[in-house]
Amino acid sequence: MVVRYKVTLAYDGTQFAGFQLQPNQRTVQGVIEKALMIMAKSSRIPVSGSGRTDSGVHALGQVIHFDFPFLLPAEKMLKALNSLLPLDVKVVACEIAESNFHARYNTTGKKYRYRVNLDYYTNPFTRFYTGHWKYSLDVKKVQIAVKDYIGTHDFTSFAASGGSIKNKVRTIYASTVHFDQPNNELIFEFYGDGFLYNMVRIMVGVLLEIGNGRRALHDIPRLYAVKDRRQARLTAAASGLYLEKVYYGDGPADQIK
Amino acid sequence: MVVRYKVTLAYDGTQFAGFQLQPNQRTVQGVIEKALMIMAKSSRIPVSGSGRTDSGVHALGQVIHFDFPFLLPAEKMLKALNSLLPLDVKVVACEIAESNFHARYNTTGKKYRYRVNLDYYTNPFTRFYTGHWKYSLDVKKVQIAVKDYIGTHDFTSFAASGGSIKNKVRTIYASTVHFDQPNNELIFEFYGDGFLYNMVRIMVGVLLEIGNGRRALHDIPRLYAVKDRRQARLTAAASGLYLEKVYYGDGPADQIK
Repeated sequence: MVVRYKVTLAYDGTQFAGFQLQPNQRTVQGVIEKALMIMAKSSRIPVSGSGRTDSGVHALGQVIHFDFPFLLPAEKMLKALNSLLPLDVKVVACEIAESNFHARYNTTGKKYRYRVNLDYYTNPFTRFYTGHWKYSLDVKKVQIAVKDYIGTHDFTSFAASGGSIKNKVRTIYASTVHFDQPNNELIFEFYGDGFLYNMVRIMVGVLLEIGNGRRALHDIPRLYAVKDRRQARLTAAASGLYLEKVYYGDGPADQIK
Repeated sequence: MVVRYKVTLAYDGTQFAGFQLQPNQRTVQGVIEKALMIMAKSSRIPVSGSGRTDSGVHALGQVIHFDFPFLLPAEKMLKALNSLLPLDVKVVACEIAESNFHARYNTTGKKYRYRVNLDYYTNPFTRFYTGHWKYSLDVKKVQIAVKDYIGTHDFTSFAASGGSIKNKVRTIYASTVHFDQPNNELIFEFYGDGFLYNMVRIMVGVLLEIGNGRRALHDIPRLYAVKDRRQARLTAAASGLYLEKVYYGDGPADQIK
């Protein structure tokens, strides 16, 4: 009898070739499956994540599930995993889940964070943990434009082209920006029912261009209409992106549905 | 005619084998001398720092000097160096100095910062930027004990043994600790006329043991008296240490002398 676990992870994506298992690459899924094999003294225990993250992308609250061959109290599982995992991955929460819980299929929403350092020269201490915008930027314009993402829109212009997903309509429940003055950083948060490949990084790129005056203040509605990836141009760097939280019917938007 | 420059640097020490030039190692001095040679199209231009920092130790305000073979406005020098240096070193200030200015011999004081993360498990995002203390800690005790460093004392117990420096008396002008609650970190600052090898890291190790109750609250005066490195035990990790500022007659303590 196997036991299904739901585990929440934080990781520094800098030294990973992304979340998803790949042969001969160091991946988050790979180091977790390796730790589980050691714990269970078994063959491979497949891990499913709420979604992939790219190389260099971080997580504060990635969620995974897996079936373990015997029962361990959740607190013991957390402790054992943290003692076996490398220091750039940490289990922040662990619980025993229903046997039909699925980290990917059951999601009802996700929240991403994106940090942009605004120093002229790259900050040595945040180079792996922020994007970087060295051009002038009008924070007020960004604060106004960021609200244009709220609501249900066709995000075709904001998705990496190709891919098998046909329906590019997504709903954004919250879209905010905070200017962290002491660190000279913009911190974006986007909470929605789902996100397309590279979508957050493209959304941020568009906002930075609006802040710099390279785009009209309300260029975002025009981008929904044209459905053309090339018109959104920039993809902000992977290093600034954090998967902050994954929701399973427990998000603010779930309460009002 | 050569021109002497005084340059202030910030660097992330994680990927350096320390400040000082070493054959076949990546050092801060090494990458700066390489950039200067490219700029001047010349042979080696020796760089002098205010002092060494060990592998993994960071700087927010390390100061160096060097003689450049021709005059460049300070702003141009800053820009040229930043365009040639790797992203983990940044020039934060640059000025043309008197020809007898010496980054090491003219120092009147230094300020160090030390960050300690207090989470039970290592934080993936700060593992290279803080020390780590997973045991219980009474912040109040640390706040009281940290004041015992203020004044002029014999720091023999707080210096790595060996070395050629005979006089181990140093004056600490300011010794503080701040508890950063959101990040669950202690941030120490020590400002003094000079520091012995590993002295700050040993001072922090003693404070952490006091906070944990492994030492008496006022064990520091006893350590001055015994003059025995072995009794100070712990050396806190290099990753938490930052050379914050170097003074040249311009520090708070210089005003009252």
